[in-house]
Amino acid sequence: MDNVERIKLSHGAGGKVMQELISSCFMEHLGGLGPDLAGSKLEVPLTALDDGAVIDDIVFTTDSHTVKPLFFPGGDIGSLSVAGTVNDVSVMGADPLALSLAMVLENGFPLGDLERVIRSVGETCRIAGVPVITGDTKVMENGAIEKMVVNTSGIGRRSQWMDHNIATVREYRKFDSRWLMDSTLAEGDMIIVSGTMGDHGIALLSHREGYQFESEIISDVCPLNKAMGSMLKVGGVVSMKDPTRGGLANTLNEMSEKSRIGIMVDEESIPFSTPVKSACEMLGLDPLEIGNEGKVVVGVVPDMADEVLAELKRWPEGKNAAIIGEATNEVKDVVMRTVIGGKRMVEAPIGDPIPRIC
Amino acid sequence: MDNVERIKLSHGAGGKVMQELISSCFMEHLGGLGPDLAGSKLEVPLTALDDGAVIDDIVFTTDSHTVKPLFFPGGDIGSLSVAGTVNDVSVMGADPLALSLAMVLENGFPLGDLERVIRSVGETCRIAGVPVITGDTKVMENGAIEKMVVNTSGIGRRSQWMDHNIATVREYRKFDSRWLMDSTLAEGDMIIVSGTMGDHGIALLSHREGYQFESEIISDVCPLNKAMGSMLKVGGVVSMKDPTRGGLANTLNEMSEKSRIGIMVDEESIPFSTPVKSACEMLGLDPLEIGNEGKVVVGVVPDMADEVLAELKRWPEGKNAAIIGEATNEVKDVVMRTVIGGKRMVEAPIGDPIPRIC
Repeated sequence: MDNVERIKLSHGAGGKVMQELISSCFMEHLGGLGPDLAGSKLEVPLTALDDGAVIDDIVFTTDSHTVKPLFFPGGDIGSLSVAGTVNDVSVMGADPLALSLAMVLENGFPLGDLERVIRSVGETCRIAGVPVITGDTKVMENGAIEKMVVNTSGIGRRSQWMDHNIATVREYRKFDSRWLMDSTLAEGDMIIVSGTMGDHGIALLSHREGYQFESEIISDVCPLNKAMGSMLKVGGVVSMKDPTRGGLANTLNEMSEKSRIGIMVDEESIPFSTPVKSACEMLGLDPLEIGNEGKVVVGVVPDMADEVLAELKRWPEGKNAAIIGEATNEVKDVVMRTVIGGKRMVEAPIGDPIPRIC
Repeated sequence: MDNVERIKLSHGAGGKVMQELISSCFMEHLGGLGPDLAGSKLEVPLTALDDGAVIDDIVFTTDSHTVKPLFFPGGDIGSLSVAGTVNDVSVMGADPLALSLAMVLENGFPLGDLERVIRSVGETCRIAGVPVITGDTKVMENGAIEKMVVNTSGIGRRSQWMDHNIATVREYRKFDSRWLMDSTLAEGDMIIVSGTMGDHGIALLSHREGYQFESEIISDVCPLNKAMGSMLKVGGVVSMKDPTRGGLANTLNEMSEKSRIGIMVDEESIPFSTPVKSACEMLGLDPLEIGNEGKVVVGVVPDMADEVLAELKRWPEGKNAAIIGEATNEVKDVVMRTVIGGKRMVEAPIGDPIPRIC
C-alpha cells in the first residue's frame, strides 16, 4: 500500500487546502528569509500571502498559467497571463511597469498556435500599456507537458495617486499602510465588485465540456490597471483584490481573515449575468466560488463609496459594478443576507470547483 | 499528411534554432512594446536578448526550469532555479534583490519531494542572500505535466561597485553602457571562465542514463552573485554571461555576435575536469557545447585581467578560473587554437546536445 502523502488538484485551487500547503511547506522554509542587501526594505513580505510583494518600493508578483483549453470564448492563455499579472500588481495600489514571459512548450506544439498566443500577449500588453521586457523558452518531450504552460511575473511601482488616495482615506479613518492589502479593510468599509461574477470559470467550463446554454458565455479576462488607477484618483480606496481561483467566496474570506473583520454581503446586490446564473443552477455550482479574470473586489470608506462606484461604472469593464456589502464587527467571517431574507455563511471553498481555469 | 509547422526540442535548447524562433515569433509581436508609464526608462529592452532586462534601474529576468531528473548529483530543481536566476541578474552588473517562485505540480506528486525541493530553494537563497518574496502554485492532472516545472523570476539593482568598475574600465578604453551586456566586449578584452566547463550537463546526463565513470561527476550548480560582486569591486569588468544551455560555445558566439568582435580562445587553457573530458570523449560530445549552472564567462580589460582572475580564484566556486582567450578583430566569430597547433571555428550549437538540463 502506498502511504506516501501526495499533491492533489485542490492543492493548486486557491482555496483552503492550498493555503494549508503554503503555510506548512512554503512558509517553513522560505518565510523567514530576508534580503542580505544593505538598505533593502521588505514592506510586503512573502508571509503576507498577498497578491504581490513589495521590496524597495517595487511591487513584484508571479503567476503560472495552465488554463485548459488554451483558447476559449473571450480570451486565451496569452491574454489571461498578461491580465492576471497586471491585475495582481495593480491591486496593491501600483502601476505595472513591465512583465516577464516564460513559456514551457510541448515538443510538437503547432507553431501557428504559439504565434496566436504571442500575438494575444502583445495585444493585451498594448491595451494595458505594459511591455514584456524579458523571457524564456523551454521545450519538453511529447507527453511531458500538455501543450503549454506560461509564467508571467510582473513588477510595478507605487501609483502616483496613492498618496492622494490614502490622504482621502485618512479624512475618515486611521490607515497606516502605504499599500492596499488584503489586511487593510476595517469596520464600516463598503465592498464593491467591478462587475458580474463567475463569467470566466463558467465560460471555460461550458466551452470545455461542450455545454450549450441559451447564449454563449464569454470570459471576462481583461487588464484592469487603468480602471483601478482611476479609482485611486478619486480616493477612499482601502483594499483591492481580484477574485480569481476560488471566486468571490475565497476573496472575501481572505480579506476578512487577514483584516480580522467580518463581511456582510447582500445576495441581491451581487451582479451575475443571467446565463451564468442559470448555468450554475443547472450544474449545481455555487457562483460565488467561480473564478474571474477581469474583476476586482474593492474596499472603500463609506462616504466615498458612491463616488468610487460612479468612477468605476464609467469604464466598460466596470459598467456592472455594484456595492455588495460592508465590513462589520456584527458578524464573524463572511455572511450573506439571502434573497429570501435569511442569512448564510459564505465559506472559503476547499478547492476550486472547476480545475485549470487559469 | 501533416503540414503543420511544429515546435521541436531544439526550439528550447538555447542554440541557433531557438534564436530564430525568438527573432521571428516573439520579437515581431513583443519587440516593439514600450512602457506607457510616464518617466519610465527601458535601458536594456527585450530586443537586446540579454540575460536580463533593465527598466527604471531595475534588472528583471525569468527562467522556467524543467530539469530531468529533479534530483541529481550536486543539486536539484530547487537549487538550480535559485542559482540560475540569481546568476542571470548578477551578470548584468547587478545585485539580486528578490526572487519569485512559481511551481506547477503534477497531481500525485509526493509531498515529501516537494518539501525537499522547497528546503533546497531556501538553503540556496540563504547562500545567495536573496529571498523568495512572492509565489504561485498550480496543480495539473496526472499526465498533464511530468512531475514539476519551477519558474523563478528575479529583480535586482545596480551593484554599488558598478560606478567604480566602469571608471576603471574607462582608464583603458571607451565604455558607454551602465550595464554589463553581451554586446559590451571590445578589441583586446581578455576572456576569463570561472572554472571547469560542462560539469552540470554531464553530471545530469550520466546520472539520468546510469553511465558509470571512474568518479561521480557532480553538477556545478551554484549562485555566483557574491563572487561576481567581488570582481566588480576589483574593476575592469566589461561583460559577464553564464554559459548555461548551449555551453561555452553558445555563450562566446552570442558575445561575439552582439559585440561585433571576433573571439580567439586557446583549447589548452579551457579548464575541464578529467572525468568530464573522458565522458565527452566516450560519448562523442563536444564539451564546449555542454551547459553549466555555476559558471560565468567574464570579459576584462587586458591590464586588469590578472587581478580579476586572482580575485575570482579566492572564491571556492572560482578556484579553477582561467584566462582562456581574447576579443580580437583578427578573427571573425569564435575561433579556437587547438592543442595540436591548428585552428578551428567554434560554432553556436544548433540545439543543446543534452535536453532538459535546466
